[in-house]
Amino acid sequence: MLDTALQFIEANKANALDELKQFLRIPSISTLPENTGDVRRAAEFLAAELKRIGMENVRLIETAGHPLVYADYLHAAGKPTVLCYGHYDVQPPDPLDEWLSPPFEPEERNGNIYARGAVDDKGQLWMQVKALEALLKSGSLPVNVRVLAEGEEEVGGEGIAEFLRAHPEEVKCDVALVCDTELFAPDLPTLCVGLRGMIYTEIEVHGSKTDLHSGMYGGAAPNPFVALSQIIAKLKDADGRILIPGIYDGLQKPTDAELAAWKSLPFDEEHYRETEVGSSELTGEPGYSVLERTWARPTLDVHGMPGGFTGAGAKTVIPAKALAKVSLRLVPGMTPADTFRKLQDYVATIVPRGVSVEIRMIHSGDPIVVGTDNPFIHAATEAMHEVFGKETVFVRGGGSIPVVGDFARQLHVPTVMMGFGLPDDNLHAPNEKFNISNFYRGTESIVRFLVHAGQ
Amino acid sequence: MLDTALQFIEANKANALDELKQFLRIPSISTLPENTGDVRRAAEFLAAELKRIGMENVRLIETAGHPLVYADYLHAAGKPTVLCYGHYDVQPPDPLDEWLSPPFEPEERNGNIYARGAVDDKGQLWMQVKALEALLKSGSLPVNVRVLAEGEEEVGGEGIAEFLRAHPEEVKCDVALVCDTELFAPDLPTLCVGLRGMIYTEIEVHGSKTDLHSGMYGGAAPNPFVALSQIIAKLKDADGRILIPGIYDGLQKPTDAELAAWKSLPFDEEHYRETEVGSSELTGEPGYSVLERTWARPTLDVHGMPGGFTGAGAKTVIPAKALAKVSLRLVPGMTPADTFRKLQDYVATIVPRGVSVEIRMIHSGDPIVVGTDNPFIHAATEAMHEVFGKETVFVRGGGSIPVVGDFARQLHVPTVMMGFGLPDDNLHAPNEKFNISNFYRGTESIVRFLVHAGQ
Repeated sequence: MLDTALQFIEANKANALDELKQFLRIPSISTLPENTGDVRRAAEFLAAELKRIGMENVRLIETAGHPLVYADYLHAAGKPTVLCYGHYDVQPPDPLDEWLSPPFEPEERNGNIYARGAVDDKGQLWMQVKALEALLKSGSLPVNVRVLAEGEEEVGGEGIAEFLRAHPEEVKCDVALVCDTELFAPDLPTLCVGLRGMIYTEIEVHGSKTDLHSGMYGGAAPNPFVALSQIIAKLKDADGRILIPGIYDGLQKPTDAELAAWKSLPFDEEHYRETEVGSSELTGEPGYSVLERTWARPTLDVHGMPGGFTGAGAKTVIPAKALAKVSLRLVPGMTPADTFRKLQDYVATIVPRGVSVEIRMIHSGDPIVVGTDNPFIHAATEAMHEVFGKETVFVRGGGSIPVVGDFARQLHVPTVMMGFGLPDDNLHAPNEKFNISNFYRGTESIVRFLVHAGQ
Repeated sequence: MLDTALQFIEANKANALDELKQFLRIPSISTLPENTGDVRRAAEFLAAELKRIGMENVRLIETAGHPLVYADYLHAAGKPTVLCYGHYDVQPPDPLDEWLSPPFEPEERNGNIYARGAVDDKGQLWMQVKALEALLKSGSLPVNVRVLAEGEEEVGGEGIAEFLRAHPEEVKCDVALVCDTELFAPDLPTLCVGLRGMIYTEIEVHGSKTDLHSGMYGGAAPNPFVALSQIIAKLKDADGRILIPGIYDGLQKPTDAELAAWKSLPFDEEHYRETEVGSSELTGEPGYSVLERTWARPTLDVHGMPGGFTGAGAKTVIPAKALAKVSLRLVPGMTPADTFRKLQDYVATIVPRGVSVEIRMIHSGDPIVVGTDNPFIHAATEAMHEVFGKETVFVRGGGSIPVVGDFARQLHVPTVMMGFGLPDDNLHAPNEKFNISNFYRGTESIVRFLVHAGQ
């Protein structure tokens, strides 16, 4: 079965890439209301492909937002059931003018495919579909498989969370497979065993009742952008420490073994600074390595500050209000609700004179750490070892995949996070890409994982 | 001559307002490149009207930006020459959704005319045109008159400044009349004898070389919005004092007589807070009254902070750069160049780790104080007294009309700032308006001023 499947993958490489390009051309930006139709189109495209390759019970599951895509193939009696998860929605492509090729016209360059969603997550979801196709073409699947893909990962995943809460029996399984992470380094097989959670908030400051002329009122009317800047400057100090009282209380630290393993990873801070970040220096909490700071410490970021005058040139206005999009990343020991409350309570004590402040939670996700001592992690470790010819390393991720927490809480199953992105793939940024050879190696790794999981 | 002119105004009230509405329908937004054609259309509309009423030598004077409109009528031998100034460009209308009627579809409500530019400055420029028309219809003008209108007042007035520098002889005059200010209170005749200057800058912060995923890089990559907020928080303290070293050095304070006169003005701080500003409290430097803070003290305001993610919903990005539009208002004793240098020097000392900062000057204008002891101020005082039946008060303005400084420096003439706006006219804000009875009283005041100036 394995050999036939691998031969099928080899013989159909060009097809697989062409199909992925079709998938990438659909601008399924889940956060923008004007793209709602595109998001559904991507769901329908995925469902049609699952049907074509022979998956059964294919259907769209409606949610309050974008639909889920479900399929199964449950003919491996006595074998475990694997839930294959991915998301077909993408981040907005802006700033558009920094893309070298249009975000929704996939282009091959230097062994990569460039497009919004190439690696996050359409390309990695497509690896799963292609792995299932190869195995089905070779006769059957070595395990029972359910596919559950969502279209709201980039906006908090409310729909899938609600579905898992309400209908856990419809996706009964023994393990979840999530392909939405990355290799720690090129050619280094990697499993992700921990993710940060997050709260994404909007802090809105109101000053005057209407926009005012800054010449006439400057010196008497509160300026909401100045007030908001004063608030933000008090959220994080110059060294990168978060100043919200109690934010670091009760954090679960990585084990000594984990910290030792991280130290042995091939990580060159200066190379990372120069090639990935490109800033004059790195920032963040003193006393912690970059990997600790991005994997195991909470952070606070501002994503944008809409409002006021943002056009070219000059407008001498004191805006009536200002907004900041502010998120915190959470690590084990923190919860979204508690973190949001601490943020609210603290901001209430630092509101500048003359303005009022409202904080809204846009979405949130729990932090997660998955155990490494289960047969599915072993199967994944073995599969990647076979494909890459190297020992698989365990890392964490700084981002959030909220659904992994839902799998643990609602389905009581472990998750295997086996991803094939690279650190410089420009996720959420212009010129997102996916290494094409990693796309094929990923497909083969998934085939091998499913075979091992069935043994 | 006076009676005939006043009768003409009375008989042609509806016409005057209809013409103004045509003028207001042209979206002559000088700061937006896409409105360049509209700005020219407004200039041509004004020129055509000046020609129609009998002004001579009407022409558009090209500049590097938007054109000037010139006209003259120089037949009052032995009489002084008055330079009538106004601007035909307007501020952008955003935020559009807060307008009760569209900004470029003038609408009459409650005795006001609502439109962008209604009071700033098309309506006030139109009073001058209508005053000249009324006098010309009555036979001739009581003084020599030149008209010089610009289309770049809202973007710094480079074109008119350059023209006055290069061709002062073409607008030789004895006094300038500027109708671009307001009455201190309804029915209170007011002359403005001082204006703040300004520098309008952009502070741009660069962090990483490209936008980054805030999950993956949060805790290691610098956040330019956090850095920019930290910078802004250090520009102005919680009490409203500007923290730029030396910024208050050498300020020329108002005279004791001026301060005493300001104290006697009908100003209710609580009413101002509630009806004009509408914030929970007023802000600004402790120890100074609202009038001092807005007329005679420098201020710093942030107008907007473009960049990053500003759409609805959530995007988990660490933007590569962030921008703030920051202006300072200047008072006598300060110069734009010196203030900009102090800002640059100071910001260079407070740049947070991991980011670089660039500050650009967008435009600037000198502060100005005009003397009250000249025959033209007396003529204006008298004219307004006759129309309003009250003593005229002298105030300053917190805004900037850079051209007044140019008239002083290049033409060596005093300026009469006789304006008919009201404090709640929403300049630079949604629902800008002009009180229609003030439009007519303004027209009559200008007629009487020109008659007195000729005596």
